[in-house]
Amino acid sequence: MDNQLIRRRMARYVELVDAGDIDGIVALYAENAVIEDPVGSPPIAGIEAIDRFYREGLGQSGASALLTGPVRVAGNNCGAMPFRVDLTLNGEPCTIHVIDVMEFDDDGRIRSMKAYWGELNLERTPE
Amino acid sequence: MDNQLIRRRMARYVELVDAGDIDGIVALYAENAVIEDPVGSPPIAGIEAIDRFYREGLGQSGASALLTGPVRVAGNNCGAMPFRVDLTLNGEPCTIHVIDVMEFDDDGRIRSMKAYWGELNLERTPE
Repeated sequence: MDNQLIRRRMARYVELVDAGDIDGIVALYAENAVIEDPVGSPPIAGIEAIDRFYREGLGQSGASALLTGPVRVAGNNCGAMPFRVDLTLNGEPCTIHVIDVMEFDDDGRIRSMKAYWGELNLERTPE
Repeated sequence: MDNQLIRRRMARYVELVDAGDIDGIVALYAENAVIEDPVGSPPIAGIEAIDRFYREGLGQSGASALLTGPVRVAGNNCGAMPFRVDLTLNGEPCTIHVIDVMEFDDDGRIRSMKAYWGELNLERTPE
C-alpha cells in the first residue's frame, strides 16, 4: 500500500466525520473491519455493526471534527492521527481530543480502527 | 491504574526524551517490555535491549522533543500522544512528527510502546 494513499484516506475520514457523512465513512471500511471506540470498550466487528455504530452515534450528534496535527504513516499499512471532535453534550459545547490508529488492507480499506480517548480528554470548549 | 498517572508518565516520557535522560526513560519501562519504533520495524524486547536502543539512538542524536497535543488516556491502561522530535540529520535541522501508543502494567510501568511515524513525517525544519 502507498503511504500517501493512507495519509489521504485518514485525512478524508476526519473530513467525513466533520461533514456527518455516514455513508462516506462506512465506505472507507472493509467488510470484516473491527473498531474499538474508545479503546477499552467492546470491539464492534463487521460492516453492518460499524454502520449502525456511526449512524446511531455520530449521525445524531451534530459533531464537527478537525485534524490537529499531521497524519503519521508507519509500516505495516497503518497510521495514527490526532484530531478533535466538537459537539454539544447536555446543552454545553464540548471538545473531545482523540487519536485514531488505523490499519489498512491491501485494497486501501480500513481493516481496524482504535480510538484513543477517555474522560480526561472530554472538556468544555473554552468560550 | 489511575488515568492521571498514565497521563503524567507519558508526558514525563517526552520530557525525558527532550532532556536526553536515557536512565530516566528506561526506568519507565517494565523488565519485559516490548517496543516497536517505528511501527513496522522489528520489535525490541526486554529492558536490556530497550536500554541499548535508546542509548545508541537517542543518546547520540542531541534531539529535543515536545508534546504537541494532549495525552489521550483510554481504557485498558493505555494511551496515545502526539509529539515532535527535533534533531540534526546530515547537518540539516529536521523535525519528526510522532505518535506514541503505550500500554502500562498494574505497577504503572510501560509494557509496550509503539511509535507511529514514517518517511512522510520527517521534514526539514522551516527556518
